[in-house]
Amino acid sequence: MAVYTDVGTDELSAFLDLYDLGQLLSCKGIAEGVENTNYLIHTTAGYFILTLYEKRVDPDDLPFFIALMEHLADRGLTCPLPVKTKGGTALGTLAGRPAAIVTFLDGMSVRRPSAEHCGEVGAALARLHLAGADFAMTRANALSVAGWRPLAKRAGYRTDTVAPGLGALIAEELAVAETSWPSGLPAGVIHADLFPDNVFFLGNRLSGLIDFYFACTDTLAYDIAVGLNAWCFEPDASFNVTKGRALLQRYEAVRPLSAAERDALPLLCRGAALRFLLTRLVDWLNVPAGALVRPKDPIEYLKKLRFHRYASSARDYGLAA
Amino acid sequence: MAVYTDVGTDELSAFLDLYDLGQLLSCKGIAEGVENTNYLIHTTAGYFILTLYEKRVDPDDLPFFIALMEHLADRGLTCPLPVKTKGGTALGTLAGRPAAIVTFLDGMSVRRPSAEHCGEVGAALARLHLAGADFAMTRANALSVAGWRPLAKRAGYRTDTVAPGLGALIAEELAVAETSWPSGLPAGVIHADLFPDNVFFLGNRLSGLIDFYFACTDTLAYDIAVGLNAWCFEPDASFNVTKGRALLQRYEAVRPLSAAERDALPLLCRGAALRFLLTRLVDWLNVPAGALVRPKDPIEYLKKLRFHRYASSARDYGLAA
Repeated sequence: MAVYTDVGTDELSAFLDLYDLGQLLSCKGIAEGVENTNYLIHTTAGYFILTLYEKRVDPDDLPFFIALMEHLADRGLTCPLPVKTKGGTALGTLAGRPAAIVTFLDGMSVRRPSAEHCGEVGAALARLHLAGADFAMTRANALSVAGWRPLAKRAGYRTDTVAPGLGALIAEELAVAETSWPSGLPAGVIHADLFPDNVFFLGNRLSGLIDFYFACTDTLAYDIAVGLNAWCFEPDASFNVTKGRALLQRYEAVRPLSAAERDALPLLCRGAALRFLLTRLVDWLNVPAGALVRPKDPIEYLKKLRFHRYASSARDYGLAA
Repeated sequence: MAVYTDVGTDELSAFLDLYDLGQLLSCKGIAEGVENTNYLIHTTAGYFILTLYEKRVDPDDLPFFIALMEHLADRGLTCPLPVKTKGGTALGTLAGRPAAIVTFLDGMSVRRPSAEHCGEVGAALARLHLAGADFAMTRANALSVAGWRPLAKRAGYRTDTVAPGLGALIAEELAVAETSWPSGLPAGVIHADLFPDNVFFLGNRLSGLIDFYFACTDTLAYDIAVGLNAWCFEPDASFNVTKGRALLQRYEAVRPLSAAERDALPLLCRGAALRFLLTRLVDWLNVPAGALVRPKDPIEYLKKLRFHRYASSARDYGLAA
């Protein structure tokens, strides 16, 4: 949510010369995207988003993200479409960083999603999973089960300063995940970070998905679990089963779940909550001096995790038996 | 350069219903303006800037700023034009703050101004002074001579922690300003903060002036002094007399200076440097915990002030004898 890298007009104009986008008319740093620097640029060809990839994104992953956005947009999913240079590439270098220009999407993210919004997210997630089915590239999910214990180690002895007993609870959850994580479920491209910040709406209709920089190849139902965590809890950390039902029903209307996927849902939700608890915990304990971005509260995900520990079936999330 | 106030879509849509701007399509927080929160909004009627006035702006001053922008835009100056509601007002309330919508201006601010840019700024400043001549409202300059000693007191005993001997130099400068400040020079509307951040260019042509939130009624030549400080020094704090000449000559091509104004220039420049030194010093010493904005370095203006202490005539700024 910050502009990390300042780009001079001369530098930007030279970069734009590589594209068929006409003359630069305006460029504003925008507060969008947690990991990267984003500018909204206006040229004689229209409005676009310029992204500079900061150090938390591995440059080797960028071709995957760019190709995925192209693939999904080609299949009618409303996501940013990377703009190619005259030479046919969609990835360049600006201000010493990898950079790309994508189309500008109208729409706004919602702060308090309604059940209708949750339903739209469910349907979009299913469409994304179907549209990604024939995507040729793969990328491992670095933040799946195998990545969680190293995160817990990074938080280390300071974990209990955030909440008493948190270290023991995390140890327990890691053991459960490492021994019981479901395997063999349908897999493919997942967004892996479909939070309200990354979904645009016009009124109650979903108008676009953004920020594919955690996208990877993993269990499709895990993406639903991330979505249930991100969209269906109330600010007091209670689970809203009406929202859960809306998300799951609209998902299934596009891509029905197998019995195995349904059965795995509580465990997948528990793992997804643990994943965001751990990354937020590490960020929380490692705020750099002079940071311009406030870390997100890990406690929110501790509360969500506690809900999942008591869930026993997909019914607890609103799915009909 | 930050988004201080978050605005929900529902709240914003309700606010927009007061205007004839059609339907809201997009809203992005932008990194523009040091004091206020700015959003770039897209509606079916086009692109606009929405400003929420934060606590550093006195709400009682807003009618002056809004009326001034209307007045200047009416006279052909390219500055943001406040958009009126269906009820005919240009100032409303959003998220508990005074708020206004203005037209979107193309153009980019420059980081390293050339002499040509400085010339454009000089001409624009003169046009602003002429266009403001028949503006009926007035606003005292709270940051002119009488406001400087209170600022120095706020910095207080910590002043010398920023640079050894700074307190004594400020005391000396305050005494000079308070006894010798020129009076009786042509006065009128001045921008009072025409820094590179507040001027847009397309190529080498000035395309717009923004951020009129320090504008006030004061000595016109003082505005030139602010401009010389803001535009004509190099990063190493040396004064670039070619840039100074460009700014002054292009100013005089639109509005010639009187002999008294020319003579006063070194003292006005010295005062302008002191004003920015003092406000930066106070900000530097009072960074709030968790601040999202880094204060600007006061030392830059100490160096500029030192240059002005040795200037003896307008010739030192590039003006022909």
